Amino acid sequence: MKIVIYIYDGLTMLDAIGPYEVLRNIDLAEVIFVAEKKGKITADSKFVHLFAEYGIDEVTQADILVIPGSAITFLKEINNPKVMDWIKKINQTTTWTTSVCSGSIILAATGVLEGLEATSHWKPINLLKNFGAIPKVARYVEQDKYITAAGVSAGIDMALYLCNKLVGETKTKAIQLFIEYDPAPIFKSGNFSTAEKEVIENAEVLLINEAKKEPELFEQIKLSNRI
Amino acid sequence: MKIVIYIYDGLTMLDAIGPYEVLRNIDLAEVIFVAEKKGKITADSKFVHLFAEYGIDEVTQADILVIPGSAITFLKEINNPKVMDWIKKINQTTTWTTSVCSGSIILAATGVLEGLEATSHWKPINLLKNFGAIPKVARYVEQDKYITAAGVSAGIDMALYLCNKLVGETKTKAIQLFIEYDPAPIFKSGNFSTAEKEVIENAEVLLINEAKKEPELFEQIKLSNRI
Repeated sequence: MKIVIYIYDGLTMLDAIGPYEVLRNIDLAEVIFVAEKKGKITADSKFVHLFAEYGIDEVTQADILVIPGSAITFLKEINNPKVMDWIKKINQTTTWTTSVCSGSIILAATGVLEGLEATSHWKPINLLKNFGAIPKVARYVEQDKYITAAGVSAGIDMALYLCNKLVGETKTKAIQLFIEYDPAPIFKSGNFSTAEKEVIENAEVLLINEAKKEPELFEQIKLSNRI
Repeated sequence: MKIVIYIYDGLTMLDAIGPYEVLRNIDLAEVIFVAEKKGKITADSKFVHLFAEYGIDEVTQADILVIPGSAITFLKEINNPKVMDWIKKINQTTTWTTSVCSGSIILAATGVLEGLEATSHWKPINLLKNFGAIPKVARYVEQDKYITAAGVSAGIDMALYLCNKLVGETKTKAIQLFIEYDPAPIFKSGNFSTAEKEVIENAEVLLINEAKKEPELFEQIKLSNRI
C-alpha cells in the first residue's frame, strides 16, 4: 500500500508526523514523503526540517494521499498550478485522499471537495467555502473517499479512523497501543467551541506570530481580511 | 529558552515531534535538534529523516533537554560513551531534563535516574531497573528535575505538563488550542493495562518487526531475553 505524504515549506510537522506514525504500521505500507522538488523542507517554525525523497514529477500514483497543513504557506500552495495539477492527478489514483488542518484548504482549492462537507483547523475553516466545500466543525469528516481532519493533532485520530477501514479493529487497536495513544492532557482546552476567551486570544497571537514568519503572505492575508 | 532535542538514527519520529510542537510555541523558545554528528538522521521506519543542525560537540548548554525513544536503537545509544558523557554534561546545565518512550532508558543509563521513579513505553519499562531507576506505570512521571513520559504519543502530554510549569495555565491552554489537541481516538486501546490480549499480541508483532530492522541489535536483545 503506497501512502504518499505531500510536504512543503512551512508545513506543521505534527500534521504530517501524526498520520505517518499511525499509517506506517500497516502491514506492507510504504510511506513516502514527496515535495514539489525533492530535498530539504523547512517547517513553519523554521527550526526543523523534513527530507522529501521524491519530487512530484516522480510520483504518479498513491493508494492514500495525506496533505498536511501549515500556519500560512498553504496560501502559496493553492497558488501553485504545478502542485494543484499534481494533487488532482494523484487524487484520481487514490482509494483515500486525506488532509490535516489547513491541508483541507489545499485539497479544496483543487476543486475536488466542491459540494462536500470538510473540516480544517478552527482558524482557516471558513476558507473552505471559497472553493465550494461545506465547512463542518468536527474532529474529522468523511465524505466519499475524502477524510479531512481538524487542526494539527487531529491527524492522529483521523489516521486511526482510516486505519480501521483498511486493516480492521484489532490491528488498529494494536497500532494505538504501539504508539501508546492513551491521551491525558493536563487541560481540556483543545476544542475551539468550548475554549475560554482569553485562551482563544492567546492562541490567535501564536497564529499571528507564526504567520508573520512569512511577511509577504501575511500582508496578503491581512489585505484580504482573513486574519 | 534553549530547548535541545537529542536525535539519533532509529528514533521514533512522534517521540521528538510531539514535544517539539508544544514547546516551540513557548515565547522566545529556541528549539534545536542535535545529533552525535550533524546531518541527516533516519527514523526507525527508515522512511523518514530529520535533520540535525548541530553535532553534540557544538552544544554545551540547554534549559530543557528532550530525549526521544526508539524501537531498539536506544540500546546502541546507551553503549556509546560519547553520547552518555554528553547527556551527563548537558544535564548539569538544564532546568528540566525530559524523555519520551525508551528515551528514559537512555537517560537512566547515564546514572542520573538512580533511586528515582521513572516511566517509559510499556515494552522496555523494566529495563529502567538495570540502571537503578524505579519503573512506574504512568502517562508521565516527575521526579526532581526529570520528567519521563510513557510511549510515543505521551510526549505531547508530558510537554503540555512541562509547559504549564514554564508559562502557566493560559498560555499552555492556548498552545493546546493552537495544535487543536482535543483527542478523540476511535478506540480506547492505548493503555497496556487495559488492552485486550489479542491487541497486545498484535502490538508485540509490530514491535518485533520494528526491532528486526536492526538485525544486530535484535540478536543482542534476543540473547538477553529482553524480547
